[in-house]
Amino acid sequence: MRIVAADSGSAILNEEFAPQKIVAVSAICTEVPYRNAFTQLSELLMTAVNQHDLIVKELRMCKKLLRLASADAVHLDMSLGGIPVSQLTMSDLQDMSISSKAKQRIREVLPELRKQATEIEQEFNVELLAIGKESLPVRIAELTAGAYSVIYASAEALKHQRTILLGLPALCTIALGEREVTARSLQQGEHDVVGFAEDSDNVIQKIKIEEFSNPAVRGFRVLRIAAKEA
Amino acid sequence: MRIVAADSGSAILNEEFAPQKIVAVSAICTEVPYRNAFTQLSELLMTAVNQHDLIVKELRMCKKLLRLASADAVHLDMSLGGIPVSQLTMSDLQDMSISSKAKQRIREVLPELRKQATEIEQEFNVELLAIGKESLPVRIAELTAGAYSVIYASAEALKHQRTILLGLPALCTIALGEREVTARSLQQGEHDVVGFAEDSDNVIQKIKIEEFSNPAVRGFRVLRIAAKEA
Amino acid sequence: MRIVAADSGSAILNEEFAPQKIVAVSAICTEVPYRNAFTQLSELLMTAVNQHDLIVKELRMCKKLLRLASADAVHLDMSLGGIPVSQLTMSDLQDMSISSKAKQRIREVLPELRKQATEIEQEFNVELLAIGKESLPVRIAELTAGAYSVIYASAEALKHQRTILLGLPALCTIALGEREVTARSLQQGEHDVVGFAEDSDNVIQKIKIEEFSNPAVRGFRVLRIAAKEA
Repeated sequence: MRIVAADSGSAILNEEFAPQKIVAVSAICTEVPYRNAFTQLSELLMTAVNQHDLIVKELRMCKKLLRLASADAVHLDMSLGGIPVSQLTMSDLQDMSISSKAKQRIREVLPELRKQATEIEQEFNVELLAIGKESLPVRIAELTAGAYSVIYASAEALKHQRTILLGLPALCTIALGEREVTARSLQQGEHDVVGFAEDSDNVIQKIKIEEFSNPAVRGFRVLRIAAKEA
Repeated sequence: MRIVAADSGSAILNEEFAPQKIVAVSAICTEVPYRNAFTQLSELLMTAVNQHDLIVKELRMCKKLLRLASADAVHLDMSLGGIPVSQLTMSDLQDMSISSKAKQRIREVLPELRKQATEIEQEFNVELLAIGKESLPVRIAELTAGAYSVIYASAEALKHQRTILLGLPALCTIALGEREVTARSLQQGEHDVVGFAEDSDNVIQKIKIEEFSNPAVRGFRVLRIAAKEA
Repeated sequence: MRIVAADSGSAILNEEFAPQKIVAVSAICTEVPYRNAFTQLSELLMTAVNQHDLIVKELRMCKKLLRLASADAVHLDMSLGGIPVSQLTMSDLQDMSISSKAKQRIREVLPELRKQATEIEQEFNVELLAIGKESLPVRIAELTAGAYSVIYASAEALKHQRTILLGLPALCTIALGEREVTARSLQQGEHDVVGFAEDSDNVIQKIKIEEFSNPAVRGFRVLRIAAKEA
């Protein structure tokens, strides 16, 4: 069973570790044994943390990826019990046991979501499921966005010659290779689950990175990224 | 302190990873340091996932085991805060903060449960506690059922010469020995907790097993079991 | 960012593993990468588990430590979303989504808490945050109290020549050195987080310790501490 999924991840933090901007969005395609992506797409986001239409962006990334890789299902980062998005109605939403804030956010984008979902279903003959945090493919997408965010934040640090604090996805640690970044899951039972990012512009070798834990949110790690001194 | 506990575990899955049948039930006896069972009993179940009287079956397994091994307490897989089962009343149940669905399930079997519990208390001079998921002995029973389910599912795959998808208990991974199956916990703080199953009919050597993560339920692993080609 | 935090931890258990007395309180100062304390203070508590003013004791320990080490923030073990304690009012408390039992406990000590917090803010120019279990420094303080509790309980076992059951903090395991005790976190994502205790009276070498899991509370470990036979 091949599954496409998308998620956005990592945040630029201020000095008090409060998130300012979401850094990256990734769509991935994975299959048994569901440990990593075999095809993937990532984009720089740098959008405000309170922006509500990230899910629409994620849906578009899935659509792009489906043109490169066929799949049996699409998993979206909306934790609504796995309901197909094209059939999701305002009244379904009303009955769900999620916070009223979360409901309001989804309500605002629901017409656009359903439109996109219906188009994707017709074009690619695949169901889009609102499965969210229960999905391992969504987790792989989150880790992939986490890996790419390191490259994007490093490019930013080089360009502006300033230090950047990057908040990684939950329970995720970074390992740097010569030309790639690996984001490993620290979640129990996910010791073999990773996201990769290719460093095609060769920025990783020009920066120094220090990883430490976020003192105010247990389970989250932070990178301090700075240009290497010449 | 010696504790007897029982649990059922593992499910036969369909191609969409939806559980169809519960595979095995185990009762175990454990003592300090509570890492594995020193005496155990397991049986093939293959009952529908929506059947509600598994707890009665589990209680009977405890009774069988108590004839082989004395214990200071019995832990049952009902998460009711550790209340003694023989004293559990409909009105206690009403006041508990568990789902109304869970209440309904327990209500249906409560008379039978109390009858069995009272008999066991009198015969073996031991209290039966509704402690559920907080109990490490119940976890060891779950892992033991997980280990035996691999042997039962393998025998099924051999008999019918078909591939079987087996959904393991939460946060559990399987290791195959020459004549035994080990189910290890992947839960945090349980790196040394295991269940064992003896492969007395020598079926493990005749099958091939692939383990991977369930893409739609994070933390759960799946085995694809098939007969080795001759 | 340097952070001071305090917590109390470990409990003397009876034979049924029920907690009787809280053993130790620690205040620590930590900084990037937030893996351990660089300065710390610990005291023997041995107070009843139902005593409600531990938070006041913890606050006083923070105050003592602030005289030894400056800090940018103080983290307290009250899980109220990170609100500054000096500004916490009865009506704030009323609106919070915590249990009415927890509210009642805080209400009883709130005047004393606010008084202490205001004094500390003025003397040390630092904010005291009610961040609780989300704080990694509070976790390091908890592990430090866990490490010291082993020494305190060992001294007790030697003095009275009796066996003591010590319940460790959640997801914590103990390693004994020649002259120190290390409490390591078993929590996911905290594999590198520890608390230390120095064994200045050399009691560790005189006792034998056995570690095992608490059968009735998953994730908690227990030590059986006894004097070595001469």
